[in-house]
Order: sequence, then C-alpha cells, then structure tokens
Amino acid sequence: METVIAVIGGSNCTPGEAQIAYEVGQELARRGVTLLCGGLSGVMEAAARGATEAGGRTVGVLPGKRREDANPYIQLPIVTGMSYARNAIIVLSAQAVIAIGGAFGTLSEIAFALQDGTPVVGINTWELCRGGQPQDCLIPAQNAQEAVDKALATIARRVGER
Amino acid sequence: METVIAVIGGSNCTPGEAQIAYEVGQELARRGVTLLCGGLSGVMEAAARGATEAGGRTVGVLPGKRREDANPYIQLPIVTGMSYARNAIIVLSAQAVIAIGGAFGTLSEIAFALQDGTPVVGINTWELCRGGQPQDCLIPAQNAQEAVDKALATIARRVGER
Amino acid sequence: METVIAVIGGSNCTPGEAQIAYEVGQELARRGVTLLCGGLSGVMEAAARGATEAGGRTVGVLPGKRREDANPYIQLPIVTGMSYARNAIIVLSAQAVIAIGGAFGTLSEIAFALQDGTPVVGINTWELCRGGQPQDCLIPAQNAQEAVDKALATIARRVGER
Amino acid sequence: METVIAVIGGSNCTPGEAQIAYEVGQELARRGVTLLCGGLSGVMEAAARGATEAGGRTVGVLPGKRREDANPYIQLPIVTGMSYARNAIIVLSAQAVIAIGGAFGTLSEIAFALQDGTPVVGINTWELCRGGQPQDCLIPAQNAQEAVDKALATIARRVGER
Repeated sequence: METVIAVIGGSNCTPGEAQIAYEVGQELARRGVTLLCGGLSGVMEAAARGATEAGGRTVGVLPGKRREDANPYIQLPIVTGMSYARNAIIVLSAQAVIAIGGAFGTLSEIAFALQDGTPVVGINTWELCRGGQPQDCLIPAQNAQEAVDKALATIARRVGER
Repeated sequence: METVIAVIGGSNCTPGEAQIAYEVGQELARRGVTLLCGGLSGVMEAAARGATEAGGRTVGVLPGKRREDANPYIQLPIVTGMSYARNAIIVLSAQAVIAIGGAFGTLSEIAFALQDGTPVVGINTWELCRGGQPQDCLIPAQNAQEAVDKALATIARRVGER
Repeated sequence: METVIAVIGGSNCTPGEAQIAYEVGQELARRGVTLLCGGLSGVMEAAARGATEAGGRTVGVLPGKRREDANPYIQLPIVTGMSYARNAIIVLSAQAVIAIGGAFGTLSEIAFALQDGTPVVGINTWELCRGGQPQDCLIPAQNAQEAVDKALATIARRVGER
Repeated sequence: METVIAVIGGSNCTPGEAQIAYEVGQELARRGVTLLCGGLSGVMEAAARGATEAGGRTVGVLPGKRREDANPYIQLPIVTGMSYARNAIIVLSAQAVIAIGGAFGTLSEIAFALQDGTPVVGINTWELCRGGQPQDCLIPAQNAQEAVDKALATIARRVGER
C-alpha cells in the first residue's frame, strides 16, 4: 500500500507559501510518498506541481462534480460532489498532514485531523494546542524538508507502536 | 420556513457548560426557534433537553447509521451515516451557530461556519479571528440569553441586507 | 421521537403522480407522521404541499448549499451541499419509504433502502425484487391511502419484532 | 490525467463473477487504465488482484474509517467514513463503470451513473433501461475483454464529442 501524506492550505496563497508547497511536493516525490490534496489552486496546485515535476504521484479530492476542476498537476482526481465534506475525506485518507498557511477551510481539516489523532505538521499556519499531550498539538516546521521529515517520522512511530 | 439555530459543543462537557447549553435550549424554544445539533450527549443533549422541556422543536444530525443513537430529547433524528462529514451539514443547515465549550470536532464546525459566512456566537469556546472583518471572528457572549439575542440579531441583519 | 416516512420521486413528474403525492402528503399529516423528502420540485413539492395544507410537518434534505433551494412547502430544510449523496441520508433517516414514479435518482434511493432493510412501498415506480424474501422486494400499492397504510404497517411490525 | 474506470459488484460473489472481475482487472492494467473500486471483498478484490498482478494501478474508495479495511490489492485507499454515500464518489470519479453481478449496493451505483450520464457496461448484472435513448440503458457485455473494449469506446466517444 502506498504511503500517503496530505498537503493542505488555501486556494489563494502568497508566493512564499506556494514556494514552500512546491518544495514539499518535490520532497514527497523524492521519498516515494503519494501526495494527496484538495485538487484546486494555490497551495494545492503548487504542491502537486512540485510532486509531478519530481516524478511523484498526485491525487486531488475535489469538492465539485467535474474531474476537469482539478489543477493540471493532479494525476488522479477523486470527484466527490460533496463540497466542504470532502475535507473529512482528505484527512481520513492521509497518514499525516502538512498544513501550509490557509484560512478557515484549512482550519477545518486541521481540526478533523487532530480529532482523529492524525499528526499535522504546520508551516506558517494556525497554531493550535488543546490539552497537554503532544498529539493534541500541531507540530511546527520551518521549511519543506523539515516538514516532510517530521511527517514521515510520525508515521514511522505510529507503525512501530502497533 | 422555521428559523434554525445550531448549538454545538463537546459530547463530553463540564456541568457548567451543560447548564449554559440547557438555558440556550430553553431560550431558543421560547423564541420559537428550532434547535439543530449533533444529536449525541454532552452539550448536544443538554441543549435539546432545555428546548424540549420548554416546548420547542429539536433536530439531531447524527454521525452514525441508527436513529436510536439520538439522545432522548431529539424529536427528529437526521441519520447521515457520514461520521465527521455530518459536521458540515449541521453548519449549512443553520442560520446561526452557538458554540459552547468544545474540542476539535467543535472547532471543525466553527471553521466551516466562518468559511461560509454563517455567524458563530461563542461561550467559553475557541477564540478565533482571521483578518480584520467582523464576519471573520467569533462573536463572544457571556451567558445563554446574550448568546441567543446575538444569534437572532445576526440573522435579522442578514435578512435585512437582502 | 417523531415517526418519519420519506416520499421519493422525480423532480419532474406527471400530473397524476403529483396528485398521488399530494394525497400521500395529506394522509401522512392526518396520521401525525413527519414527511421527509428531497426538498425540491415535482413529487417532493406535491407531497410537501399536501402535508403542509393538512397541518403536518415537512422536512427537505437538499442536495445544494442554500436553504432557499427548498420548495415553498418545506418547513425545515436540511442543507447538505452533498449532491446525490444526500439520497443516502433521506433513506437512512426514514422508517419507511413511499416511492411515486421517479427515474434514476429515485432508483438509487430504492436501492439504498432495500440494501438497508428499510421497507419501500411503490406506486407506479420501478419494480424490483432480488431473492425470494419479502424484504427484498418493493411493496406495491394502488393509491395514496393504501401506500400510507402499508408503510405504517411495516413500521409497526418492525417495532413489534424488537 | 489518468484514465479511470470503476469496477462495481458485490462484496459476496460467485466464483464465476470473481473470475470475470479478475480478467477485467488484468485487461484494464494492460491498457494502462487505473482501476477504481469500493476497496472491499468479492468483485472488488478480484478485480484489484487482476489489475495489480498485471502491473496496473488500483484505488479503493472505502465506506469505513480505516485504510486497513482495504483488500490486499488496493494500492491507494481513499477513506471516506461515509458508508453508502461513498457509492456516489466511486461513480463520479470514474469515466465509465463496469458492473459485474451485484445486489442493491451495486444497483445504487448503476442508478447514480445513469443519472449522471456516465456509461455503464454490465456483465451478468441488473438489466435497466429507462426511456429510449442509448445513454439511458446499461450496455451489455459477455466477457471481460468485451466489457473493457466497450467501456473504453464510450470514453473515447465522449472525449470526441467535446
């Protein structure tokens, strides 16, 4: 089974966030990880472009009803027709989440992930902590490589715990 | 068409939160507002009990597949079988949201609401603001009556703007 | 808890189907049953009109994102934003289903209901049977009163079996 | 973007249906088509095994909340936690559907597909037609190769029409 990491963030983003997302996508591809995202523009497109250009696999879980809504770097569109509810699918389908910037849609995904115990690594995004346990907090990272390193480390740790 | 306000909060809550939720439910019933909630225990049950005991109408949007999962004060269970994705339905179906306490599930609902522009009044819950516009922030309230007043005022204002 | 019966059928329907749907709505209201439907036009609107005019309660589970999409006889709109997936919610939330005419959308709802063991009474609709058991078949009815009688009888029988 | 065909059918199936599903999976892999299915047992597992053993790609859209629910031949699990509503996602995400045997769950997927205008090729499954147009009917096939040929032909035709 493929290792899957979701990259989440706004469909509008700053050039700096797009650059980080692009590098995260590249880094995931280099490690052989499948990139899952919401399939639209902004952070999602930059990350998918990075992954595709580095030879990786990209999946976009779309809110609308048309596969043509996907950005050009999505190889496999999953078409939900479910609007915001697709955010829950993105989080459930990923073994870890990397959040870059983002507004309220991204916050809903972070909340779903932390509720489920799915680790979230954050770059320049919402800062959240509830309770004193590490699994109740976003894991901060400064750059793309650190974010991917930390996301993969949490997956390895969880597999080891089973 | 009925006026609908959602009450959200944890399925585990403190006695103080349950008391506030109960009073919010009562107050909504007195104003003739239908109470929508997630249909389970904690804040959801206390609010539904308050509304039912004051003669109001209660609806529970359930995450599971059985109407029997609803707490005893839900008159109309909507059974989704969709787990967390039902949180999006709660928010979309309400004209305003009152949040009491709550953890990550509640946070996902607040995020959905603010993304959609649905007003959220909060008592002892997450404090959120993004950008400088009033509609990007939770509206704070100190008690049940103030919360219901503010929620109804936002609905009246939005109806007036159309 | 309210007794809930779903009325399903096309958003386009013949005048004869609309008349039957209207009478089913009236009959449900007279028996104190809440009418659940998809909230749009055609069979859904005729049934909701019948129920409302006879003093009953109506709920519409909408596929789109706006409560204003509901027909004028829906008292409580449940807004899903989930397109076809809302068909599963209609069936899960009802204790029995009455199908009147209908095309492929209605067929998907009948299929969900029979998969779940929810009884479906049909008037002038798809004829379906799979396997030799009664619960694997649509229950035929000739008119509104017979349909409501049979739907309520299946609910009573299932409650009795518990 | 990958060409995606869904294979649908029961989680319980006859040995004959499993053999056909296996061959459909192999044939899809040989043509470079990504196989999408519900990710569980029966027809879904046989098709995914055929595709994987022939070097193809497999995606399973799961109804539950755990990626571990996927059969061993699913390379990419999409985890929805949405029970039956995931059937709508399978159909929306595919450019054509091949149905093999199947009971009411499969019927709901066929209904969604025909409602959307997504072509469905059927082997030993429900026979459905509504109205006189070809796009309102299941396309019958006798064996795996014919099914895949016909499914790909409908995709080519639809692409040509745009």
